[in-house]
Amino acid sequence: MQPWKTIARRTILPHSKFLAIEDHTIQLPDGRIIDHWPWVVTPDFINVVAITRTGEFICFRQTKYAVDGTSLAVVGGYIERGENPLAAAQRELLEETGYRAAQWQSLGSYAVDGNRGVGVAHFFLAQDAEKFAEIDADDLEEQELLLLSRAEVETALAAGEFKLLPWAGIIALALLRQKRGG
Amino acid sequence: MQPWKTIARRTILPHSKFLAIEDHTIQLPDGRIIDHWPWVVTPDFINVVAITRTGEFICFRQTKYAVDGTSLAVVGGYIERGENPLAAAQRELLEETGYRAAQWQSLGSYAVDGNRGVGVAHFFLAQDAEKFAEIDADDLEEQELLLLSRAEVETALAAGEFKLLPWAGIIALALLRQKRGG
Repeated sequence: MQPWKTIARRTILPHSKFLAIEDHTIQLPDGRIIDHWPWVVTPDFINVVAITRTGEFICFRQTKYAVDGTSLAVVGGYIERGENPLAAAQRELLEETGYRAAQWQSLGSYAVDGNRGVGVAHFFLAQDAEKFAEIDADDLEEQELLLLSRAEVETALAAGEFKLLPWAGIIALALLRQKRGG
Repeated sequence: MQPWKTIARRTILPHSKFLAIEDHTIQLPDGRIIDHWPWVVTPDFINVVAITRTGEFICFRQTKYAVDGTSLAVVGGYIERGENPLAAAQRELLEETGYRAAQWQSLGSYAVDGNRGVGVAHFFLAQDAEKFAEIDADDLEEQELLLLSRAEVETALAAGEFKLLPWAGIIALALLRQKRGG
């Protein structure tokens, strides 16, 4: 089973640091050429499921442009230039919540869109989190911090209250990992 | 907590049926205006975790342009014009695997990117699946069908072998739902 090869790529829309569109020419394993395959370049990002020393999940109630109404959310943000994913995760946890965590583990790194790219999501589980400072977030969205029990998180997930794919995905991964005794 | 309002939108890159880029003008709840907010239009899609009558998870080993090497995968595909998500899920399951399933339940619908859109993922859990026909897929990727036990799926997920965000996300959601006795 052979991968597809990128034969040529050019930027056809250099919108901003948040988005560029490329046009790729691809060669399939059987030799066929596909022209004008669109590829979406957006920044890689992190999400963090952070759990306090007393077992509460640090979540938000917030708005987000792509969803109707409000959604439950987790810590997240774009990785800055030159920053590694874990450092970005630790920075965002502190900025968005004022918490620091003693134990960190990866929940995996995932391409967002198998055909178009759209960046890579790096997921982390942070445990033994403790309040360290005040919130210092520069996000445009309004958000309210909530400390939820595991049972509340499970119920909210099943009810579709985490409305974004990365948020629902990382919550499900964290619940499974924690059950395995991680 | 008020949502952001779309004041104006125009298409700045009408690439194909697979991609268009829009430029939005947004009004924040405090009245501020944000110009040139990029918005990515891609087709909505479905993924299906299908489980046979004997409890095996129907997966694939396959290549995908956005991932290195091969990945474990689940049934998935774009929703066709006028098709509802469940019908798309049932069509793709039959085309890609030759299986039909007696029991279907939603695992939720999720915006892929909270800032840019990038379509909506509709997730389904299909149980009591039985072989009905031969595979009739028109996908460009090579793929090999695998029947995995729940334990094998759990181990592969924890090892990062489902390399795309929607695949890892739906597998985690399905494992949790099944545990709840879904």
